Amino acid sequence: MDERARQHAEILVDHCADVQQGDMVEIQASKQAEDLVVALYEALGERGARPSLSWSLPRASRAYALAMDAEDYETKTHDLAAMEETDVVFLVGGAGNAFETSDVPSEKSQAGSRAHQPILEGRLGTRWVITTHPTEAGAQKAEMSTPAYEEFVYDAVNKDWAEQSAFQAQMVEILDPAEEVRIVSGDATDVTMSVDGMTACNDDGDHNMPAGEAFTSPVPDSVEGEVYFDLPLMRRGNEIEGVSLTFEDGEVVDYAAEKNEAVLASILDTDDGARRLGELGIGMNRAIDQFTNNMLFDEKMGDTVHLAVGAAIDECVPEDREFNDSAVHMDMIVDMSEDSFIEVDGDVVQRDGTFRFEDGFEER
Amino acid sequence: MDERARQHAEILVDHCADVQQGDMVEIQASKQAEDLVVALYEALGERGARPSLSWSLPRASRAYALAMDAEDYETKTHDLAAMEETDVVFLVGGAGNAFETSDVPSEKSQAGSRAHQPILEGRLGTRWVITTHPTEAGAQKAEMSTPAYEEFVYDAVNKDWAEQSAFQAQMVEILDPAEEVRIVSGDATDVTMSVDGMTACNDDGDHNMPAGEAFTSPVPDSVEGEVYFDLPLMRRGNEIEGVSLTFEDGEVVDYAAEKNEAVLASILDTDDGARRLGELGIGMNRAIDQFTNNMLFDEKMGDTVHLAVGAAIDECVPEDREFNDSAVHMDMIVDMSEDSFIEVDGDVVQRDGTFRFEDGFEER
Repeated sequence: MDERARQHAEILVDHCADVQQGDMVEIQASKQAEDLVVALYEALGERGARPSLSWSLPRASRAYALAMDAEDYETKTHDLAAMEETDVVFLVGGAGNAFETSDVPSEKSQAGSRAHQPILEGRLGTRWVITTHPTEAGAQKAEMSTPAYEEFVYDAVNKDWAEQSAFQAQMVEILDPAEEVRIVSGDATDVTMSVDGMTACNDDGDHNMPAGEAFTSPVPDSVEGEVYFDLPLMRRGNEIEGVSLTFEDGEVVDYAAEKNEAVLASILDTDDGARRLGELGIGMNRAIDQFTNNMLFDEKMGDTVHLAVGAAIDECVPEDREFNDSAVHMDMIVDMSEDSFIEVDGDVVQRDGTFRFEDGFEER
Repeated sequence: MDERARQHAEILVDHCADVQQGDMVEIQASKQAEDLVVALYEALGERGARPSLSWSLPRASRAYALAMDAEDYETKTHDLAAMEETDVVFLVGGAGNAFETSDVPSEKSQAGSRAHQPILEGRLGTRWVITTHPTEAGAQKAEMSTPAYEEFVYDAVNKDWAEQSAFQAQMVEILDPAEEVRIVSGDATDVTMSVDGMTACNDDGDHNMPAGEAFTSPVPDSVEGEVYFDLPLMRRGNEIEGVSLTFEDGEVVDYAAEKNEAVLASILDTDDGARRLGELGIGMNRAIDQFTNNMLFDEKMGDTVHLAVGAAIDECVPEDREFNDSAVHMDMIVDMSEDSFIEVDGDVVQRDGTFRFEDGFEER
């Protein structure tokens, strides 16, 4: 057992999910993540929690979807019943082949997502954590050797989270009382949105590990401008690349993608909320110093901003504010490392990837 | 995909469990059984059923048990809730290392079994099927090459079950109206039991695949005599070998084992019912022509009889008859190939492994 996997498990169980004796825990993982699963089981045994283990097997999901009629998808009532009795969910990423479901027709993926919606909502009512185990396939996606990729993942995950949380709090304090945020990068991205009355949050490990962002939800109708997303993202086993979106009155009125535009279109067409922004996130985990083609890491990188079309975030939207509802929540990343700035109520708070409260920030 | 795995899956889904559109299905399997899982997913998709997949990972179970306090085991309420909504369960054997949990202290295994009891009872209320996928480790346990072992498994499983069922019905017809059964093998086994009023059943694939036995439940207080079990069995990650039991008034009054006697003792001590017989089974699957150290197969071999201490079988015990209740059901095998006979109400019905209704049976 790699001692780093054990430390990862301890952080997940204690810092992220605060697991207590008697907690009912569900772990979802691929066979490639076996080491982390074993470490989690050990940590959960020490705390007297009760785990059960779901096997993520994209090869089986693909075979199933190809054989299934789209109209036969219905909610798995046994999975739903289990979720209603579950206190903690660990979703462990890191599979064998990220493209395993790339040839599943989109109407089946959509039918599957819709049927899964009540279970997803149930999961959001638990203490859930998404994480990644470093696998060979993850290293390949990152274009790194496996040992170097392991080092990268554990540097981002196994850190002093109290210290990191204090660092992020500085950005949360700026974002929380703010009214308007403007994001500019190169010639292709200049977008403005209201965050007036929304609550900014500190992502220090409640639901993502690695954590490392300040985030809020935009006012749904307020988004105006154009965004070019520099980094690819995976959706339904497909890589979508070079996405541009144009917003008017908060809605996507024009879109394009350099690769897999049809998949993007199908996601934007899921429901009304899928064409509006649900999240603005600002990456702040400085251990993440390169892109690795994994949204969970890329979006936490200090030199990035991400926007998600689809569902807003509960804790960011007070009851008297409009909540953007959707079955979709798709994060997309803007590279802010060069020729870029974030403006909050007219003041620049980050320039070329450096925050106002960091060394090297230039007032101009 | 091995075409034989696909045929195995079709038999499980249609012949064994009669899966219908909308059925909620649970599959429990190790990663070594991936091919059968994928084939099952494909077959379930074709029929419009809704599967979920539990990952059997003995390495994690072991780490958990070693870390856990025995008194903290409680029923997994999320697993129980799922089971209550489940129509069909496929338990797929065939792991990496059958001895993975051999160093878990028995009080923890016992605590785990007790906590699991309500879920086990729930499972018995579904259409459940136990089967095995041929793995390298299974081949090693059988002392065979992997291709030869695959051939063996698929010969036993992928057969004409209507024909096999008719063959077995001949023994069921003898056993069902019977009052007394006597089993004699060599010098060490001579045991008599009443099956008066019990219902004999035809195992043609409802719950086991491979199927292949005629079985009933003995009257609990009626068992008298001595049995030596020739074949080893696995329990809680331990191999128990060379078991002898002595019965008086139905109860085990003396026992011994040549290997792991302490494990045997702990099982017999689980509860009162664990010291009485719950099942008499007569193997009849002629494709199983050698021992492979796997109870699911060994007990179906034409030249064997098996007896189980512990829980009786629901469908064999009419309501007005005494049902032997227990958390245990442990099958043990007597080799009947030489110097052996089965007597039913004073008539020999099998001698040296050959049934009265087969060629080669000698009236003596």
